[in-house]
Amino acid sequence: MNAPIPTAQVREQLYRDMDAYNLTPLWEVLHALVPPRPASPCAPALWKYDEVRPFLMRAGDAITAEEAVRRVLILENPNLRGQSCITQSLYAGLQLILPGEVAPSHRHTQSALRFIVEGSGAYTAVDGERTTMRPGDFIITPSWTWHDHGHEADEPVVWLDGLDIPMLRFFDAGFAQNDTSKSQQVTRPEGTSFARYGHNMVPVRHAPPFGKTSPIFSYPYERSREALHELEQHAPVDAWDGFKLRYVNPLTGGWTMPTIGTFMQRLPAGFQGQGWRQTDGAVYSVVEGEGEVQIQQDERSWSFRFGPRDHFVVPSWHTARLSSSKGCVLFSFSDRPVHEALGIHNEERLS
Amino acid sequence: MNAPIPTAQVREQLYRDMDAYNLTPLWEVLHALVPPRPASPCAPALWKYDEVRPFLMRAGDAITAEEAVRRVLILENPNLRGQSCITQSLYAGLQLILPGEVAPSHRHTQSALRFIVEGSGAYTAVDGERTTMRPGDFIITPSWTWHDHGHEADEPVVWLDGLDIPMLRFFDAGFAQNDTSKSQQVTRPEGTSFARYGHNMVPVRHAPPFGKTSPIFSYPYERSREALHELEQHAPVDAWDGFKLRYVNPLTGGWTMPTIGTFMQRLPAGFQGQGWRQTDGAVYSVVEGEGEVQIQQDERSWSFRFGPRDHFVVPSWHTARLSSSKGCVLFSFSDRPVHEALGIHNEERLS
Amino acid sequence: MNAPIPTAQVREQLYRDMDAYNLTPLWEVLHALVPPRPASPCAPALWKYDEVRPFLMRAGDAITAEEAVRRVLILENPNLRGQSCITQSLYAGLQLILPGEVAPSHRHTQSALRFIVEGSGAYTAVDGERTTMRPGDFIITPSWTWHDHGHEADEPVVWLDGLDIPMLRFFDAGFAQNDTSKSQQVTRPEGTSFARYGHNMVPVRHAPPFGKTSPIFSYPYERSREALHELEQHAPVDAWDGFKLRYVNPLTGGWTMPTIGTFMQRLPAGFQGQGWRQTDGAVYSVVEGEGEVQIQQDERSWSFRFGPRDHFVVPSWHTARLSSSKGCVLFSFSDRPVHEALGIHNEERLS
Amino acid sequence: MNAPIPTAQVREQLYRDMDAYNLTPLWEVLHALVPPRPASPCAPALWKYDEVRPFLMRAGDAITAEEAVRRVLILENPNLRGQSCITQSLYAGLQLILPGEVAPSHRHTQSALRFIVEGSGAYTAVDGERTTMRPGDFIITPSWTWHDHGHEADEPVVWLDGLDIPMLRFFDAGFAQNDTSKSQQVTRPEGTSFARYGHNMVPVRHAPPFGKTSPIFSYPYERSREALHELEQHAPVDAWDGFKLRYVNPLTGGWTMPTIGTFMQRLPAGFQGQGWRQTDGAVYSVVEGEGEVQIQQDERSWSFRFGPRDHFVVPSWHTARLSSSKGCVLFSFSDRPVHEALGIHNEERLS
Repeated sequence: MNAPIPTAQVREQLYRDMDAYNLTPLWEVLHALVPPRPASPCAPALWKYDEVRPFLMRAGDAITAEEAVRRVLILENPNLRGQSCITQSLYAGLQLILPGEVAPSHRHTQSALRFIVEGSGAYTAVDGERTTMRPGDFIITPSWTWHDHGHEADEPVVWLDGLDIPMLRFFDAGFAQNDTSKSQQVTRPEGTSFARYGHNMVPVRHAPPFGKTSPIFSYPYERSREALHELEQHAPVDAWDGFKLRYVNPLTGGWTMPTIGTFMQRLPAGFQGQGWRQTDGAVYSVVEGEGEVQIQQDERSWSFRFGPRDHFVVPSWHTARLSSSKGCVLFSFSDRPVHEALGIHNEERLS
Repeated sequence: MNAPIPTAQVREQLYRDMDAYNLTPLWEVLHALVPPRPASPCAPALWKYDEVRPFLMRAGDAITAEEAVRRVLILENPNLRGQSCITQSLYAGLQLILPGEVAPSHRHTQSALRFIVEGSGAYTAVDGERTTMRPGDFIITPSWTWHDHGHEADEPVVWLDGLDIPMLRFFDAGFAQNDTSKSQQVTRPEGTSFARYGHNMVPVRHAPPFGKTSPIFSYPYERSREALHELEQHAPVDAWDGFKLRYVNPLTGGWTMPTIGTFMQRLPAGFQGQGWRQTDGAVYSVVEGEGEVQIQQDERSWSFRFGPRDHFVVPSWHTARLSSSKGCVLFSFSDRPVHEALGIHNEERLS
Repeated sequence: MNAPIPTAQVREQLYRDMDAYNLTPLWEVLHALVPPRPASPCAPALWKYDEVRPFLMRAGDAITAEEAVRRVLILENPNLRGQSCITQSLYAGLQLILPGEVAPSHRHTQSALRFIVEGSGAYTAVDGERTTMRPGDFIITPSWTWHDHGHEADEPVVWLDGLDIPMLRFFDAGFAQNDTSKSQQVTRPEGTSFARYGHNMVPVRHAPPFGKTSPIFSYPYERSREALHELEQHAPVDAWDGFKLRYVNPLTGGWTMPTIGTFMQRLPAGFQGQGWRQTDGAVYSVVEGEGEVQIQQDERSWSFRFGPRDHFVVPSWHTARLSSSKGCVLFSFSDRPVHEALGIHNEERLS
Repeated sequence: MNAPIPTAQVREQLYRDMDAYNLTPLWEVLHALVPPRPASPCAPALWKYDEVRPFLMRAGDAITAEEAVRRVLILENPNLRGQSCITQSLYAGLQLILPGEVAPSHRHTQSALRFIVEGSGAYTAVDGERTTMRPGDFIITPSWTWHDHGHEADEPVVWLDGLDIPMLRFFDAGFAQNDTSKSQQVTRPEGTSFARYGHNMVPVRHAPPFGKTSPIFSYPYERSREALHELEQHAPVDAWDGFKLRYVNPLTGGWTMPTIGTFMQRLPAGFQGQGWRQTDGAVYSVVEGEGEVQIQQDERSWSFRFGPRDHFVVPSWHTARLSSSKGCVLFSFSDRPVHEALGIHNEERLS
């Protein structure tokens, strides 16, 4: 009678034999596939604007907006280099346009946000309407709408691009087209969309122009700041967020884009926030003022001091705390609309 | 063999016999119950402000706001006198408040709108927040919220009240309470609600304050007029409506109240509108300018010339045509949200 | 100097003067318009089937289904005689069809339910599909769909009709048409709708056939009873309702019709229910068994003992208690979908 | 004067310098990030059951269900080996349970479907209720519900597992827990969920048990087959799909799970389907009968003949054609609910 073959050997043989049939044993990987809690591969990271800006200007010399199509430096997550993403599901970059330049017209199923960081007078054109960019403005180029950028004023303009590129790649749903003309025809005067949808009134018998995306494609900072200011005067401060507003689609009350949620918040002077963690990793752009974010996960911790125009990312399920001695304003975006639609959003607030 | 009893006699006997059992034959009334098209008992009607205003002022002498609770002259439909309604489902009235007066605090499940017709400086308080009234402002007192009115400035203020009183009566769902204090305590400064919800941004982790009703309870004319103006600059004129906007609840994109839809429209100078009819009867308040409405049903027709602060009603399924030689602005409200929720809205546009 | 004119006289004069202008003082009627709680004009009432049935049969002799179009005895609320309604917003009647008869094809915007009370073998045809009627079946003829009834078997068939006729009248939204042919063409075999939508599966790329109304227009008692039975085996008994199920539209999970909610419930033997009241008045049809309902409002009270095929109505905001010594099954309907859509539903459960 | 530095050199230097700052040029990768159309890295693939089954049985010898926790052979996409997925967003595997075994209780935020392939008598327990498995049954273990499997009958049971594991990993939102006991306590008899929600009726005042997931967690083949059969009798055949049904959540009419859509379809004998492509890659399990699927993308093409219990995958934006000479029944699932929620679903039907 033979000795029984050791289990490990039996299994290895099985694995080898079935490998050719595209079969693999779950039990060897189950723990990694169904982890006890999110262990995001993303790292917290900070991009100081005074370090990034010189590279942007060098890029301005090295390539034209038109040749680049989009002259953008991608903010790549340090742990995901080569993947063109800042979290697993989101892309972020800083785009430079110089006076006289054009970033040619194209469209794609990816949704994009622009948050203006520096300079005024460039424009984004969406579906026949231009909007002039000023610092702090939040602008959308909705999925599958023609859009181009141009600049007829006289200082460099830089903005943050936020896109769902990794999601569309993951779901294999990306389409794109280049326009036959460099800049699209302007068919409606600036301000049309805001006039039609921005005043808590909407045209009767309208067909919403952009599907699931907000029909307002520009949320000027002037109004957002007023909203924040009035909230700060009248509402109690939130122990985690200070004063935080969510941009909404006036046709639904929901998110401005189906894939990306956008926020603006004010930390009042002397704010010492409580910690929280959530499953949606978030990207921040500092609009005004200074502050600090402390991030922790397990034994590791990070601390970033930030000032105007800096950018940073807080990955999924990392505990973050915001504070500010002199007060500051932060714009941020995350993939929370997807987490909510899929029923997988999770959040924990520490006190 | 007896002669058969005539049918009519058999039936009459049956009707008499079963009457005591609360039974009645459908076939005698079917046609009236299921009419080929709506034959509203409401009549078109116009209330000229220069005829109504003197009565309002006399009412100001005859009774105090506090004694009246609400010093209102009901605009009763001529065909529905004694029923306190302007259409079968809607109530409208003109309310007067004089300097120094108070209309005491109460709440009810009926939803109410106020549209300011004349005078400035009175206030409505809703749920601890006051809003100052100026001509053209649209203000809501949501279902089951405490509200009172007061007036600390120095001219008479008159506004249009629109309520769903007949609906709540029909559905046997009306509740009401008087407040223990005459004027409710102010707990939030004026402008709070607008600051929080009016800028296409909403507070994160908010609980919507008023259920199905818009969290903004004041839509100032300043903004509505700006929206109309910009629409007029940029959009094509509609052959039926001129330039017409619907007020929206920024948390849903839907109606401002679950029972009443509200609109503001501008007829440009020289506008000669096409005819239309719809199942929701509508009440109009003339904000600025002059014009004419022609109304037809079957062989009957009506023609009303209207000027500032006049009011008129267009009943269900009556064909109406609006025109204006010098241009005008109209506020209106109807029960369309209910027609839509019940799947019974119908509309016909003639060309 | 003259004596001042007494207030009452001043007011009376004002009322008289403005009456011609269709103006009336709110303060004289405010309390009635905005009552502290619903004071429905409807009365609780019971229709014993053994009293009603002889009248139905006499109606069978007195008029043909075709001549009557619908041979129905309306269950009129004792307090609302002449208004063809059982509550202010709902219509109910008992319809008789005899072997060989046809109730001709028509359509209307009113939604109708049929609940089969006695006899088998008649059919309702909706939009080209017939469904055979058996006691306890719940059948819908959706708004604006062609429908006719016929009977090719050999016993009288009686069913309860429930319609939203008073609502469509109140909202001035009723349309109706007679078909050019007496019975519509059958274009799909019986069972098609149920096969397509009744199994928690729906055809891919379907266009829902009936707008806001359930695409299943027949809910056979065989399945409802199975659902009730299994619930009774497995779920705890509810102290107010026994075991109560709501029929749903499988395309939305919501109500079967936008204007009328439908329910079936079982009171187990020995059930002594707690009292409750709600703003939606409800109509009951007794399917099997016997029981008692006690109804109270203010000082008044009613008590009805009911048996198979009896019908009764519980008005808005009347406190009701159900009990049954031997157990029973009840079908019911109310206007709750409207109360919910309008945000005016209210309910109180006593314990 | 120096010669200008060549552009390529300037750029390379820039890229090198900014690399340390986690910055990378978009223009070098833009085309790949925003492709003209989806170019899924997934390959079409077929798993013949007679090839897979022997490995399953060897796995049955090599490891117990309890030791494995889940004894599953993952169907790995040939182009995505090592990633435990069948498309980029979906996981599929075949699970074996032998008589007397237990797969211990745990829960996770990942949603899972089970589609029974071979054998009867095993059970899945979800949230205190067991359901017995029979071939063709579709069973759900909703997100974050305790579930375990066991087998008290006498033949091996094999089922297909479909999960959203890659999505939860991508969105960094996976949580999991092991139960303290091996098998959860049974608290409700088998059939309870179906009795409560499966008959187009739902309990009044229910709290939906599973959030966004269907409250019915078992859809028995007996009913699905009946639905298919009746559809085949009554409906026209679809040129692309034959007769195809979507499983629905009876509380919403929507998908059974927020992340995975599930379908069952019948190709009648002689069916020669037209081609189509869509952005959601789909996994098929052959229930009965035989057929063929032809898949094309660009110049490449694949052709798979399939029989009972075979499995295959059609990646995003690959053109597929189904045919069957003798007729067959197919179960399938995809990530379409996500594509729809995100507004990125796209589909093309060729004729």
